[in-house]
Amino acid sequence: MSIITKAACVGGGVIGGAWAARFALAGIDVNIFDPHPEAERVIGEVMANAEKAYGMLTMAPLPPRGKFTFCKTIQQAVEGVDWIQESVPERLELKRGVITEIDAFARPDALIGSSTSGLLPSDLQADMKYPERMFVAHPYNPVYLLPLVELVGGKKTSAQTIKRAEEGVAEIGMKGVVIAKEIEAFVGDRLLEALWREALWLVQDDICDTETLDNVMRYSFGMRWAQMGLFETYRIAGGEAGMRHFLAQFGPCLKWPWTKFTDVVDLDDALVEKIGAQSDAQAAGRSIRELERIRDENLVGIMHALKAGNGGEGWGAGKLLADFEKRLWAKGGDQAKTYDASGPLHLLDTKVNAAWVDYNGHMTEHRYLQLFGDTSDALLRLIGVDFAYVEAGHSYYTVETHIRHLGEAKLGQALYTTLQLLATDDKRIHFFTRIQDAASGDVIATAEQMMLHVDAKAGKSVPAPAEVLAKLKPIAEEHAKLAVPEGAGRHVGQKR
Amino acid sequence: MSIITKAACVGGGVIGGAWAARFALAGIDVNIFDPHPEAERVIGEVMANAEKAYGMLTMAPLPPRGKFTFCKTIQQAVEGVDWIQESVPERLELKRGVITEIDAFARPDALIGSSTSGLLPSDLQADMKYPERMFVAHPYNPVYLLPLVELVGGKKTSAQTIKRAEEGVAEIGMKGVVIAKEIEAFVGDRLLEALWREALWLVQDDICDTETLDNVMRYSFGMRWAQMGLFETYRIAGGEAGMRHFLAQFGPCLKWPWTKFTDVVDLDDALVEKIGAQSDAQAAGRSIRELERIRDENLVGIMHALKAGNGGEGWGAGKLLADFEKRLWAKGGDQAKTYDASGPLHLLDTKVNAAWVDYNGHMTEHRYLQLFGDTSDALLRLIGVDFAYVEAGHSYYTVETHIRHLGEAKLGQALYTTLQLLATDDKRIHFFTRIQDAASGDVIATAEQMMLHVDAKAGKSVPAPAEVLAKLKPIAEEHAKLAVPEGAGRHVGQKR
Repeated sequence: MSIITKAACVGGGVIGGAWAARFALAGIDVNIFDPHPEAERVIGEVMANAEKAYGMLTMAPLPPRGKFTFCKTIQQAVEGVDWIQESVPERLELKRGVITEIDAFARPDALIGSSTSGLLPSDLQADMKYPERMFVAHPYNPVYLLPLVELVGGKKTSAQTIKRAEEGVAEIGMKGVVIAKEIEAFVGDRLLEALWREALWLVQDDICDTETLDNVMRYSFGMRWAQMGLFETYRIAGGEAGMRHFLAQFGPCLKWPWTKFTDVVDLDDALVEKIGAQSDAQAAGRSIRELERIRDENLVGIMHALKAGNGGEGWGAGKLLADFEKRLWAKGGDQAKTYDASGPLHLLDTKVNAAWVDYNGHMTEHRYLQLFGDTSDALLRLIGVDFAYVEAGHSYYTVETHIRHLGEAKLGQALYTTLQLLATDDKRIHFFTRIQDAASGDVIATAEQMMLHVDAKAGKSVPAPAEVLAKLKPIAEEHAKLAVPEGAGRHVGQKR
Repeated sequence: MSIITKAACVGGGVIGGAWAARFALAGIDVNIFDPHPEAERVIGEVMANAEKAYGMLTMAPLPPRGKFTFCKTIQQAVEGVDWIQESVPERLELKRGVITEIDAFARPDALIGSSTSGLLPSDLQADMKYPERMFVAHPYNPVYLLPLVELVGGKKTSAQTIKRAEEGVAEIGMKGVVIAKEIEAFVGDRLLEALWREALWLVQDDICDTETLDNVMRYSFGMRWAQMGLFETYRIAGGEAGMRHFLAQFGPCLKWPWTKFTDVVDLDDALVEKIGAQSDAQAAGRSIRELERIRDENLVGIMHALKAGNGGEGWGAGKLLADFEKRLWAKGGDQAKTYDASGPLHLLDTKVNAAWVDYNGHMTEHRYLQLFGDTSDALLRLIGVDFAYVEAGHSYYTVETHIRHLGEAKLGQALYTTLQLLATDDKRIHFFTRIQDAASGDVIATAEQMMLHVDAKAGKSVPAPAEVLAKLKPIAEEHAKLAVPEGAGRHVGQKR
């Protein structure tokens, strides 16, 4: 049974509109009430952004999109729906009035969430007839992508309401995080506000400008917080001794002039023990080593994602990684000038990393092709087709690939690849690559591929220049002496 | 010319050891001085972590690893090297003494960086003979992965030193961010400390526990800060009106009880204008729409990375996405029971997203195979081979794939895929998939593939059950009436 089959958004704008988009993309019809003359346009723009984001985010089959109905009154919008989300401007009297009106016309068991960034739910529900079903459901911008919803009940909110609200937001792909006690600005905005106030001082006092401050965050702890948050990160920093050790070590800093935030807790034994016990519960039995592994894999994954970002140009820490790799390739190219072509070229050594495996720990299919591609890239660098060559406008493109899977690569497994030339001419390189287990040499997969030398701007094949062909030739001559690999020349389904 | 060809680490431990690892992995020999009896073991452990992390981080060719030399005295460690990194415990007198000793034996033009988290460089360089080459180089844990180094000069530090330090850290894959004026805790630790102090209050006052607080961060603004930081994020929140509008709107919050941090700046016109101008410079001409696009692509990329994290099980916002997708697939499976098998099955609609393209904006090779794989997954769900079926121990594995590239898919291009069965029996499905342009229908790539039904635990092929074959049969019968696609049955390099 779904919690939400029909929803209402009271108040459109960037926040209300994104709630409407989240509902609609999960297949839920939405009534919208917003008297602003531009409401329909704004919601349309938010919806377009949300659809674009979902298109990138998931290949899973989205249900038929829910319908928007623009309503003339709150009554019309909220009657008969399961969930009403209030997102009107941040003024207590206004919000309280709107919520009281929603309360009057909504089904008594309908859930009523407020998007308020910091007002207390007890204040918002003060005049309601059925206050037990009202709560704060505070999302974060961009609401159509960031999944967090802080769920905060007021004095009169029922436990059952919070439980249903958690299930409800899960149905639209969001994460309901329940805040135990109401407080102004809840948890997220309090943390944001403290950091923001420090940031304003730093800029005011000319310690740094806004770009420097942003760089400090995004090249360092921003990536820690994206995946583990604050306390679990510090648990690891405490080492095997864990959270209590960390607190003992860093407790004295609270007295130091390290921020203008000077109203500090008394970090006494009771608080240390409380945080230590909560951190233990949170780790759920994972050792520091295990958390460290997960953290490092996550950080690598985030940097890889940012390397592919900004249309492939890279962004932040990912762009930095790409730049570092260019340095390494430039140097590596020099070193690789010596190679042994008396057998297939040994071109790559790697390990199956966490981002490459499915939930069974097996390397996913397309990562095999990535390894084959990295191997042919290594061959190309060997014959002078490197970054500079490609940027100057020519390259080899793969036009045909035949893959056979003979075994399975598993998480952590060490692998290497070898490449054997089968035939070459002035435009074409026909070759055979094996992915092999580093320990046994067993062949796990093979690829037979054809690459064509192209003029990328003209979009057509052209002969490779003499200096490239001259580097290719001695390898081709050596490899001509080798036996044709078993499996080369096959078509799919051919008998052995 | 490299800035660093030989380095010294004075003080090992987790921070000094990670500096040593960064140097060594960039091919730089490192002298190490640390009187602690366990120093060699600790550095060995950090180095092992760093090597594992680099193994995942990059396929670029790392140079031959630099050598570690453990030295008995500071003199022995620092003589003749280009860069000395001091990472001894955080006590001013101790650090000042060590740095003064380094100064006495290092080459006068050698760079001396301190890893201090918050001490002022002017205090550290007070007793030096050549103070102009000393500065703070403050890294972040895990130092072998997070690239940030805050570079802070003292009163006597030369501008030339800071410039060379920036180049030096770039050589080892790190990002030097120069802080304009020295202040206790610099920039990063001040922001961390402000947020930390608020977090301690929230736990102390039982507003939330540590896990809840971490969840609030990692499902929301943690991901914003991992890629854009604070100010650029808020610039977008201000909409087309930008940063000044954002400040006008949120300025009043500074007076609200949204944090225990109450010593706030006066956000007067001068400060608003200062921040506005700095934010303009930082955006470097990018419009809000463009920043929004980059942010959304980055957030999607981070969530994808976290979905693949923790050995494929998913982590944080990525695990949430995976769970949401399972819901969608479960529902989507129901809807897809109706299909049209009178032609090739239309199974997937998608757009080429930013994480799929190379720096030329072309879809990278292995993403084609990912689309082919997603398409065959869609076929499998259609015949009842879904998550539950696979988890119960049986599945179809791809054993052979033949890809032809006939065109290029570009960033943002809308695509669909169609699948045609060529032959089936009780174990095998032989089929042909096309990736087509959504507008023209032009075929961009094709794959001919063979899948085998397997018992995953036993690791061998077995006949598929009757209910699966019964769903496969009507499609196979319809597709038997279709012409064999041009390109099927080819081997690599075959003439047309």
